[in-house]
Amino acid sequence: MKVIADLCVVPIGVGVSVSKYVAACEKVLCEAGLETKMHAYGTNIQGEWDDVFGAIRKCHELIHEMGAPRISTILKFGTRVDREQTMGDKIDSVREKLGGHLPGEDL
Amino acid sequence: MKVIADLCVVPIGVGVSVSKYVAACEKVLCEAGLETKMHAYGTNIQGEWDDVFGAIRKCHELIHEMGAPRISTILKFGTRVDREQTMGDKIDSVREKLGGHLPGEDL
Amino acid sequence: MKVIADLCVVPIGVGVSVSKYVAACEKVLCEAGLETKMHAYGTNIQGEWDDVFGAIRKCHELIHEMGAPRISTILKFGTRVDREQTMGDKIDSVREKLGGHLPGEDL
Amino acid sequence: MKVIADLCVVPIGVGVSVSKYVAACEKVLCEAGLETKMHAYGTNIQGEWDDVFGAIRKCHELIHEMGAPRISTILKFGTRVDREQTMGDKIDSVREKLGGHLPGEDL
Repeated sequence: MKVIADLCVVPIGVGVSVSKYVAACEKVLCEAGLETKMHAYGTNIQGEWDDVFGAIRKCHELIHEMGAPRISTILKFGTRVDREQTMGDKIDSVREKLGGHLPGEDL
Repeated sequence: MKVIADLCVVPIGVGVSVSKYVAACEKVLCEAGLETKMHAYGTNIQGEWDDVFGAIRKCHELIHEMGAPRISTILKFGTRVDREQTMGDKIDSVREKLGGHLPGEDL
Repeated sequence: MKVIADLCVVPIGVGVSVSKYVAACEKVLCEAGLETKMHAYGTNIQGEWDDVFGAIRKCHELIHEMGAPRISTILKFGTRVDREQTMGDKIDSVREKLGGHLPGEDL
Repeated sequence: MKVIADLCVVPIGVGVSVSKYVAACEKVLCEAGLETKMHAYGTNIQGEWDDVFGAIRKCHELIHEMGAPRISTILKFGTRVDREQTMGDKIDSVREKLGGHLPGEDL
């Protein structure tokens, strides 16, 4: 079962800067062979269910190893059985309805 | 690794009423031996990582089998390594700071 | 416009225990006259749009005043125009489909 | 109070394709003068609190006007008082820790 997800990890008890933990997760997801795209409030991920959730578990394990005592994660994820759809398809579908260009997108 | 999660499944393409899908998930989670507590916008779940995520996968599979072509799920989940904490502990901790009683809680 | 929401505030940069901030928010929501019900991973809220979002803003302001430099909040919220629905209605609708009893609910 | 948010609207009861509703929201956010960046599972938004939440309300109103009887929205949002931070700053901070390049980013 394929899944498109959006992962946002929030390490708690390590101060206000969490970017090094997010960077470590980016590496984990990349090394798992998953297609990802980071944005300002999380990371889009697509792949097979077990690969995606296996990598997310590794992210939690690694953040704890790096010293964070507590993690609160928000994960949105979608599955569909009516047709195949990639992360790019989802964006293209909206872009098309806006005449070929998204707000904030470089021309 | 123990996890406390909050699961909110949104079947898409099956009309406005989604309670039968939510009810089916409640059964899946219960049959997986997980401790759960449903609320008006999701279900709290606690258990071992693999048990929790295995049951969530079964929920997605079942909702698709029941006829939903698409599902968008929001999952919050937390892990901590500094100490054990249950769902009840989290609520008790807030209740204590409010003098022993939560707003909306029956006396 | 009526809204049913689920609020989960995560103060960052104040250590691992966040219950005193959550408790302060419970008071803010209650004093705003909103109907609320806390659970282990957030708080259900129902009310008029402006009342709900006004109270949430006060929660952010108060948590910062209490000393948290950063807050990351997850808010789920739903509106519907086909019919009136309360938080209790949502739970009742699932309970009914489960034969009158939710898993984890005291008999 | 400035806020960085991530908005994901899910119209319910209008079938499996929701891109036209998402496209309409992109226009609302843009017309409100907010800085936005859409991704595959939502839209990053930054601006003043009242502008952001005012635009989100307009999105809900518009989606209902377009015919969706029910909407379930997931909103993550963060405020901080220790320093100014933009959406771009958040991404730059992670990119720097990865040696100047994010996975999935075109060279």
